[in-house]
Amino acid sequence: MSLVIVGSIALDTIETPTGSVTDVPGGSTTYCSLAASYFATPHIVGVVGDDFPDTVLTLFNNHNIDLAGLVSEKGKTFRWGGRYAENFDDRTTLFTDLNVFETFNPSLPEAYKNASHVLLANIHPGLQHHVLDQLKSQAFVVLDTMNLWIDIAHNELLSLMKRVNMLVINDEEAHLLTGERNYGKAAAKLREMGPEWLVIKKGRHGALLFHEGSVFSVPGLILDQVLDPTGAGDTFAGALIGYLAQSKDHSFDNMKLAVVFGSVLASFCVEDFSVDGITYLEESDLEERYDKFVIMSQF
Amino acid sequence: MSLVIVGSIALDTIETPTGSVTDVPGGSTTYCSLAASYFATPHIVGVVGDDFPDTVLTLFNNHNIDLAGLVSEKGKTFRWGGRYAENFDDRTTLFTDLNVFETFNPSLPEAYKNASHVLLANIHPGLQHHVLDQLKSQAFVVLDTMNLWIDIAHNELLSLMKRVNMLVINDEEAHLLTGERNYGKAAAKLREMGPEWLVIKKGRHGALLFHEGSVFSVPGLILDQVLDPTGAGDTFAGALIGYLAQSKDHSFDNMKLAVVFGSVLASFCVEDFSVDGITYLEESDLEERYDKFVIMSQF
Repeated sequence: MSLVIVGSIALDTIETPTGSVTDVPGGSTTYCSLAASYFATPHIVGVVGDDFPDTVLTLFNNHNIDLAGLVSEKGKTFRWGGRYAENFDDRTTLFTDLNVFETFNPSLPEAYKNASHVLLANIHPGLQHHVLDQLKSQAFVVLDTMNLWIDIAHNELLSLMKRVNMLVINDEEAHLLTGERNYGKAAAKLREMGPEWLVIKKGRHGALLFHEGSVFSVPGLILDQVLDPTGAGDTFAGALIGYLAQSKDHSFDNMKLAVVFGSVLASFCVEDFSVDGITYLEESDLEERYDKFVIMSQF
Repeated sequence: MSLVIVGSIALDTIETPTGSVTDVPGGSTTYCSLAASYFATPHIVGVVGDDFPDTVLTLFNNHNIDLAGLVSEKGKTFRWGGRYAENFDDRTTLFTDLNVFETFNPSLPEAYKNASHVLLANIHPGLQHHVLDQLKSQAFVVLDTMNLWIDIAHNELLSLMKRVNMLVINDEEAHLLTGERNYGKAAAKLREMGPEWLVIKKGRHGALLFHEGSVFSVPGLILDQVLDPTGAGDTFAGALIGYLAQSKDHSFDNMKLAVVFGSVLASFCVEDFSVDGITYLEESDLEERYDKFVIMSQF
């Protein structure tokens, strides 16, 4: 048992300046596991309602995602709606209908408890603690979170940070957690809070990887078309831990590659709505895009 | 005659969250020429008042900057005052006393007219046209500008862009000129306006170099201490063209290196007030910092 991913599964309604979609696959686990599936077999834990489309379950199966930890409950699937501003950066939440997700209590199948890599995708820090409590192995744990939990579950998040190997957050969340705008100072404070590895995502400006005294910067790819930024961060984290689970190498050099492949998948993600940009990619697609990162940043 | 730099020479009064200084060396030519001096001999054109400190002239001389095009006029030197907000990004101009700079009409000494490289540092586009009109050589011309000229001298700037090889602007200016937030789309529009080479500076996020279908990204170095961002863009442009004037190689690969050395000097610039960060650097200082860019971005 290698890679376990725990988070939300949702049906999203999304409005962007270029279009809108209704009840499309969404949620942190959905993006993370599809992205991770290009490198390793994701074993997911989540809950859906009895209205969850079979087409999405088929999509998961086709991506070789293990659904042993997926529970289907009577009722409706978690629904989320959001609208993006003209700049694609500012997002307004239109509605959050938790439905069956309201009472979600992640329970790991026995086989999952010996995971080598665990991605705590974005859900309440209390539930993320509960996942770690069930582990029997010394897994490499990556933690994702969001501004909401920094605000309303601060202490649970702080204690969680002491239990994980890597924290992946965006620059606004880094500022919210540390009060620092300087990336170096923010990173130092965040690493003092627990995680020895840290990634700060900067959207179109790429991402920074921090570890001990070292820092690595991956650029944001210049894309002709951005249709939907939803899930780009989840996709980044999913591909990153998928790459790590496959390579089983936690050296700084290999972690750089994991961050680059996280960026590769995230760049595909934003080019289409929902998960459409990260389904059924060929190995050659990933290689071509990886080469673009090489050309763009190597001198 | 190789590198000619034309722009403003000023005495600045600067307030930042970490301190303040009065009547210190400033102006686009000052930063550009000091930065360029690490790679080539800058021949500058500018005007100062009879109150201009000998210590700064000595500094120019010590940096092997040719002052044949520097005119000293009766009256006071151009004074500029600015205050930075807590985030170091937002700047308020406190005063602009043009003084002798008000009637500045750049006149190139005869020897300057055969320049191989010309940096049109930030001054009114009308004066930048006048500089190009005096050239007898096919120089490689780099153009810097600012939001003020985009607003009040738009047409002169647009016609100027057709006469230069490279435009260096920041992301806000790129948006102002094109209406585009997407870097790829903004770059395409800007290059259609004339310059075959384009650099978009992104402050702490580094810079992007565009040429034909290619793009290169240099990261922003993570600095422990930023004291004064004034002149970082001028320093970047000065080091860039200095590197080009020295190497005489306009291939994309060499242009990448010019952009990296522009970033190296700019990173020193912001670490101290005024030009203090870019005076009397050793070659080993530049090499050490270059290595930091390598470590930070190569995978």
